[in-house]
Amino acid sequence: MHLNFIDIIEIIGTFSFAVSGAFAAMEKNLDPFGILIIAFATAIGGGTIRDLLIGSFPVAWLKNSNAAWAIFGGAISSLFFGRHLKLIHKLLFLFDALGLGLFTVIGLEKGLAFHLSNPVCVALGTITGCFGGVLRDVMLNNVPLIFHKEFYASASILGASGYFLLVSLNISEDVAGISAMMSIVVIRLLAVRYNWTLPKFYV
Amino acid sequence: MHLNFIDIIEIIGTFSFAVSGAFAAMEKNLDPFGILIIAFATAIGGGTIRDLLIGSFPVAWLKNSNAAWAIFGGAISSLFFGRHLKLIHKLLFLFDALGLGLFTVIGLEKGLAFHLSNPVCVALGTITGCFGGVLRDVMLNNVPLIFHKEFYASASILGASGYFLLVSLNISEDVAGISAMMSIVVIRLLAVRYNWTLPKFYV
Amino acid sequence: MHLNFIDIIEIIGTFSFAVSGAFAAMEKNLDPFGILIIAFATAIGGGTIRDLLIGSFPVAWLKNSNAAWAIFGGAISSLFFGRHLKLIHKLLFLFDALGLGLFTVIGLEKGLAFHLSNPVCVALGTITGCFGGVLRDVMLNNVPLIFHKEFYASASILGASGYFLLVSLNISEDVAGISAMMSIVVIRLLAVRYNWTLPKFYV
Repeated sequence: MHLNFIDIIEIIGTFSFAVSGAFAAMEKNLDPFGILIIAFATAIGGGTIRDLLIGSFPVAWLKNSNAAWAIFGGAISSLFFGRHLKLIHKLLFLFDALGLGLFTVIGLEKGLAFHLSNPVCVALGTITGCFGGVLRDVMLNNVPLIFHKEFYASASILGASGYFLLVSLNISEDVAGISAMMSIVVIRLLAVRYNWTLPKFYV
Repeated sequence: MHLNFIDIIEIIGTFSFAVSGAFAAMEKNLDPFGILIIAFATAIGGGTIRDLLIGSFPVAWLKNSNAAWAIFGGAISSLFFGRHLKLIHKLLFLFDALGLGLFTVIGLEKGLAFHLSNPVCVALGTITGCFGGVLRDVMLNNVPLIFHKEFYASASILGASGYFLLVSLNISEDVAGISAMMSIVVIRLLAVRYNWTLPKFYV
Repeated sequence: MHLNFIDIIEIIGTFSFAVSGAFAAMEKNLDPFGILIIAFATAIGGGTIRDLLIGSFPVAWLKNSNAAWAIFGGAISSLFFGRHLKLIHKLLFLFDALGLGLFTVIGLEKGLAFHLSNPVCVALGTITGCFGGVLRDVMLNNVPLIFHKEFYASASILGASGYFLLVSLNISEDVAGISAMMSIVVIRLLAVRYNWTLPKFYV
């Protein structure tokens, strides 16, 4: 098996998403099976919802054993080394941002491959990057975090929109994809560093 | 673009569903992104679940930019004019009833186009009309409203069943569709006016 | 209509799943429509999620009126004879275990028919057997029971894994299927009799 740069980012992104799911499940005091399922749902949820919406079957994770191994690794590491993983939370946070950037671009490109319109591709990218976390929160009976607390989906939307801006400026799709991914990572890091939030509105 | 009568009802129904989603999200104090997503899920949830179940891909809202614009309009109006929208809550309620009627008939007819049995078509009509609200409530961590409070899905089921009654009496499908839609609207309005509820059972 | 042994187990398993959904809905004080929907979701949720993931359309329950009748029967029995059904809760528990065993094997075999890998087939079997209950709990705003309380999904995973062990020992698929189903039932009965749980981990 030959792993290229994208595969490696995908694996560490999947691992980080799985760890975030496992930690959230452990806070709710689930048993190891429940923790594994929530880790799975967090890591594959976004891509699965995307594939369901566009009709790409079987959905991606059924065909990709790399993802399954990364998720097992993330869930089991969380179970056994939870305390130690927390010590590297800044590294995990960086991995998560990388995953967000990469999965957004993967989702967007899958939309393009299915000949869908640009706004729909932005939506599919955002769904791929963010809806694993929504599924995690719904299954754990929380209001989804990204709906009220973090500048997370917004980074994904901005980066995905930037992709189409760049392509419209005659920049190649490869360069646009890498730029979109990197800007999502940078926006996400800046958002947490400077505590960006969206303004709230009241009725 | 030429909009006919059905398109216009669809747009105002979608707008009303989006407003109902946005209001529910604002009550939970979500940020604008969360409000937009809940508005989307409320407005397109029913049709999306229907399309997933019967295998119609890509699901309807990925191909229909009218719906997306109506939802954006509904979500943004709720954010900026929430207080004023509440003043026209009777109008919004009427729009919602129109949407329920129309979406039920659309769902039912899509089931027929896929050669499914009559009871399944009733179920698909009800899902199309009502399950956006279920998705909204599940994502916001509420027990779905239509399961315990309102005579809402029942209006949808009665109207959809009436469609097949009329067709079995040799009434044309067009007339049956319009009659089903109108009876759903009337049942819904009467139900709220006279405070109909289903009886409850206890174990 | 000719019903064979498998059909009969499927019907009583579906009935039992529907009753478990209806009881959970009645505890939340839902109205009869809500109870019916939760009964439906509990009984068909696992197979529906499986069919969505692998892309088998329309999903199984749209084509199978036996299931719909068993669910109606389960929901209506719960509504009218809830008190009496509780007297036979041991019988219902046995039916539920039979359903878990059968649905796990059905899901696993459907995965094989779609040429998916063995671990994916184990996952699909477990999803078919267990995720109706997850859907029930998510819709009722509970943390899914199988994630923190019962040795339930574990029985399903063990049985499904046993299937592949037996097949690798050159045992015929029919015998392996029946053995897997029976061992899931036995593991489930022993687990409840001796109060087995998975160990919990803390961060």
